[in-house]
Formats: sequence, structure tokens, C-alpha cells
Amino acid sequence: MTARQAESAFLQACRREPVPYTPVWYMRQAGRSLPEYRKVRQGVSMLDSCTRPEVITEITMQPLRRYDVDAAILFSDIVVPLRAVGIDVDIEPGVGPVVDTPVRGPADLGRLRALEPGDVPYVTEAVQLLVAELNGRPLIGFAGGPFTLASYLVEGGPSKNHDRTKALMYGDPELWHALLGRLAEITISFLHIQVAAGASAVQLFDSWVGAVSPDDYRHAILPHTSRIFAALGSAGVPRIHFGVGTGELLGLMGEAGADVVGVDWRIPLDEAVRRMEPGKALQGNLDPAVLLAPWEVIEQRAREVLVRGRTAEGHVFNLGHGVLPETDPGVLARLTDLVHAESTRPKPGTP
Amino acid sequence: MTARQAESAFLQACRREPVPYTPVWYMRQAGRSLPEYRKVRQGVSMLDSCTRPEVITEITMQPLRRYDVDAAILFSDIVVPLRAVGIDVDIEPGVGPVVDTPVRGPADLGRLRALEPGDVPYVTEAVQLLVAELNGRPLIGFAGGPFTLASYLVEGGPSKNHDRTKALMYGDPELWHALLGRLAEITISFLHIQVAAGASAVQLFDSWVGAVSPDDYRHAILPHTSRIFAALGSAGVPRIHFGVGTGELLGLMGEAGADVVGVDWRIPLDEAVRRMEPGKALQGNLDPAVLLAPWEVIEQRAREVLVRGRTAEGHVFNLGHGVLPETDPGVLARLTDLVHAESTRPKPGTP
Repeated sequence: MTARQAESAFLQACRREPVPYTPVWYMRQAGRSLPEYRKVRQGVSMLDSCTRPEVITEITMQPLRRYDVDAAILFSDIVVPLRAVGIDVDIEPGVGPVVDTPVRGPADLGRLRALEPGDVPYVTEAVQLLVAELNGRPLIGFAGGPFTLASYLVEGGPSKNHDRTKALMYGDPELWHALLGRLAEITISFLHIQVAAGASAVQLFDSWVGAVSPDDYRHAILPHTSRIFAALGSAGVPRIHFGVGTGELLGLMGEAGADVVGVDWRIPLDEAVRRMEPGKALQGNLDPAVLLAPWEVIEQRAREVLVRGRTAEGHVFNLGHGVLPETDPGVLARLTDLVHAESTRPKPGTP
Repeated sequence: MTARQAESAFLQACRREPVPYTPVWYMRQAGRSLPEYRKVRQGVSMLDSCTRPEVITEITMQPLRRYDVDAAILFSDIVVPLRAVGIDVDIEPGVGPVVDTPVRGPADLGRLRALEPGDVPYVTEAVQLLVAELNGRPLIGFAGGPFTLASYLVEGGPSKNHDRTKALMYGDPELWHALLGRLAEITISFLHIQVAAGASAVQLFDSWVGAVSPDDYRHAILPHTSRIFAALGSAGVPRIHFGVGTGELLGLMGEAGADVVGVDWRIPLDEAVRRMEPGKALQGNLDPAVLLAPWEVIEQRAREVLVRGRTAEGHVFNLGHGVLPETDPGVLARLTDLVHAESTRPKPGTP
């Protein structure tokens, strides 16, 4: 760990240590909201851009040139490790991940072989390049969570209600657990590779897990998420866990072993605190759609998030989901400065 | 009210009176899951089928020939009253409602004129035909809720995150309240027309309102929903209110004046009871995806819903959202009988 990392407000907040100010980063801070991103991506497919170290590095760094955010997040996609083990997945513009041959029976499990570092050399290289360039600012590694990965594999693409996925979860627990077990293995390996290359924290995005009830989460998903977080435990990096619409699941997502639980905008952070066991930091939770409103509204809403975030043992400011493509980058720059200025605590002894 | 209606288990449960058994109906019980529906709809557009009394009547009755459900629900669509006042909305197959000229500014409000009974003669006629044919079994009228209608109007079609809608809600409260006020007027009129023609209950579907936080619901939506329910109060019919992913909003949806609050599958009914003020019945909440699993799973899950539903002052069994198109109608028939058989209480004095 570098000297600057030891002092990183982001890592301090994740560890529930005192912070000089509330750290901030944004889900999808790199991406379609930035003209320079759209320029780099011209003529380069999404998955190609996730397999070229210099492209990954450039896109990951772009928001840091505009915003004084406290962390970078590796530019990648949750299906990258699936493709790396040979799944026929592609990302169609305007659609999302599409899997040619969905997983429907036990015979399909064989296609989910173990992930080795040699399968994703571009990730190792990109993380190493980024760590050097970030000069001590933390890089967040990431992976998709087991329910969300399973949903893309079972549905064959994005899905409104995850019906087939849930039908499998309800109707064939043996196949379900075998599938999620393999996905957990791949995810553990993918996150280990990123940490070994220098990532300072990891976020597990189980974006769509809010589609299941707490009882189902506990029995069908939590065992696999717990295994992922436990396997990462010895790495010593903060483990962040996030999904959309997970108000009912926040306590369980903490129980699964996350150090930091991400909250969408549907519940205030002080209510999220009440749903968690002690010993967890929170991340969130300004509604991304607020950023489309006039600045006075953004300012007032951001202040509310900061006030409520003070009830948590640690608070990393973020949006409640990813930056919307139509967001004005100037607004994110201003918001970043507002969060820092509003939350700065004078050092002991200063007037 | 006919003698049979006075005895309707559905209406009794809505009124939190003792019931001989737990009543059951299904959201989207009429529709794409039925081959006879697909046959009637061949070559007839969705909105055309909602404006022909004999088609409305046939489709509404179809599920009652298969399932021993305790209520029929008028076949219609939430955009029907919008089209009736002249909004250029159509329903595109595989897409959903599409509005050619979205509502974006105050000048657009003029297009949302008041709805008169003469605008929807087919609804009055269909309800009258149905009430005669139903022979005392209750008919549920319905309308879309203010947030959901606003979302289609502002986005111009179905939307993943309702970003523009929320940007308007956050950024221009004056226009927002003016828009929802007009939508509430239209909705009140549309529901009054259905009740005047003989509907025994009404359901307000604010399907997508779960996208907002409780604070925003209270300030931006509840005043309009309250007005709708208050205006229906003198009609004396039970008022049901439903939205997806509204676990955080259930108490407020009750406060708005609903007699019955619908719950999706994300929280168990006994937990929903804890979130409500006394004096409310609940409706729900089997996950529609459960119906794609083997019968043993469906049976066990349905029993769980019944057990938890007993903690409510009144319980109407339903799914947590609409019947999925791929659902086997035979399974719904069997489920209906299971709910009735499992919940039948012997009359006092019988062994």
C-alpha cells in the first residue's frame, strides 16, 4: 500500500475509519455520458474495448481528468469473465449482453469452466497500468454477482422480470446451485486476478438481485455470494456489494460478507442503517435522475444524502445507480466538489 | 347490490369481513396466457379490442370459463382514457404504449382535457353487458395511477428508469403537479364511469411508482392518489391500489385512501401487514414466475402465501404481478381450487 492509499478517504470510509471528508465516486463515471468516451469507442465494440489494455486504461482514466473523484473503477463489463471462459456472449448496442446458447440444463454447465489468469491477460495488464498511472488513488475492481450473471445466461439476454431464471431457481434447486457455484468460482478468480494486479477494493454488482424476496435470497443466492466474499477476505481489500431495488435485502447483503453495502435511491441512508447489522459502511444514494434537474435541486438533494449518510459507520457518496448517458459532465464535476466541500471536517486543533 | 354480491368472498375480504374462504383473482387473468384470447385478438389491435364492447366482454369472461376466480376484471388498458381525450397514444405489439408527442412543457397540458362518459361509451356498454353476464360475481374496474400515466406521457413510451419523468418531478414541481392533477381528474372520471355502469370494485394500477422514494411519493404523488380515492369514496366500492416494487411505499399507499393494498412478491404479506396502518386489507402475492415451476413448488408457495395472508385483516389471493404469457392455464385452474380448498373455514356449528 502506498502512502497516499493509507490516507485515501475512500478506503478509510470503507473501513469505517475517520475521514477528512466524504469520499465520492460514481457508478458508470466512465462511459456514455462523456464525449471523450464516445470518441474512443467509435468503431470499437464494447467487448473489444474491454480486452485492450490501453483502451481500458484510457476510458478508466477519463472521468478522473474531469472530476476530483476519490477512486477509479476499472472499465469492464460483468460478462467479460464469461466470455473469457468461452461463453458465446456479446454485447449488442442498445440491447445489452446477448448469449447465443442460453444455459437451460445440466449439460450446459460444462461450458462454465474455471477462469485462469491467462484467460484475461488484458485485465491484469490494464490494472497494472492503471495502478501506476493513478499514483496512489485507489482503483476499484469489479465483477457481476451470481443472480445477475445467471439471469443473462439463462434468459439469453436482458430481461424485464427474469422469469426463466426464477423458474429455474424455484423449480430446480440442484441445477440452480450448481450453476451459481460455477459462477461464484469464476467470479472469485476474476476478482483475485484484479486484486493481485493491484486493485485496492472490489465491488460485486448483483444488479438485478432485487427481483427476489429475502427468503429466496437467503436460500438461493446468499450462500454463493458469501463464498465469493469469504474467498476475498484474505486479500484485505474492502468488498462493496450493490444491487438495484434491494431495500429488503440490505441486511442479508451485509451478512453475506460485504464491508460496504450500496443502496439505491429508494430508501434513505438512515433507514438503510437501521436494516444493517453493525460493522458495515454504506455507499450511495443520490437518484441519477436528480442530475437532470436544475442545480439548486441537485445541491439540496446531495446535502440530504450527506446528512443521512452521517448516521452510517462509514459513507461513500455515490449515485443510487449508474450515471445516465444524458448527464452533463459539468454537473458531476460540480457535485464532486460540493460533496467534498460540504463534508470537510477541520482537523483537530484547527480553528 | 345483488344477493350474490352481498355474499361475495372477494368483496367481504376487501371490506375485512369474515369470509367463507380466501377469494382469488389474477392480474392479467385475461390475456396472452390464454389461447382463446390470442384467437380473438388475431388481426385486432390492442386499442381496438379495448373499444369494442363485445370484444371486451368476451375477453373479460374467458378466464372465468376456466378458473373459479372470485372476480372478473374489465379488459382494458391504462392508456384507454388518455386516447379517449385525444392523446396520440397507441400500443405497439412487443413494445407497449407509445405516445407520438410526449408531454414536455406547460403547453402540452391543454391536450389533457376532461374525460366525459360520452368519450368512452364502449366502456359503459361493456361493463353493463358484463354485469348482466356475471350474474352477481363482482367485476373489478380499473385505471392507471398518476405516476405511471405520467411516465408514458413524458417518456413517450415504456421506460426502464423513468428518467425524464423523474427529472420533471424533481425539477419542475409546478408543471408536475399540474400534469398529475389533470391525470387525476381523468382517472376519477374514468373510474366513476365504470362504477356507474356497475363495477363492484376498482383497482388503481400505479405499476411503476416503486421507482420513487417514500419522501418523493409523499410530496409528488400521494396528493393526487388521495384525491382519486377520496372522489371514489362516496361510490362505496372497495378501492384497491397496486404497484410493483412498492415495499417502501405500502404504508403510504394505504394512507392515500386505498381499502386494499396490493403487494408484489418481494416482501412477505406478514411483513406488509407490519408496514400498514390498521384498517387495510391486502392483496397478493405469489411470484408469477413460481407458476413456471413444478406443481409441488407452486403448492408449497401458495400455502405459504395463505398462511402469511392470515395475519392481514382481509386477504385477497393474487399474484405479485400479472400472469406471465407463458403460464399454463391448467396450472392457474388448479391453483384457484387449491386456494379455495386450503382456506375454506367450516361454518359455525358444522363438525
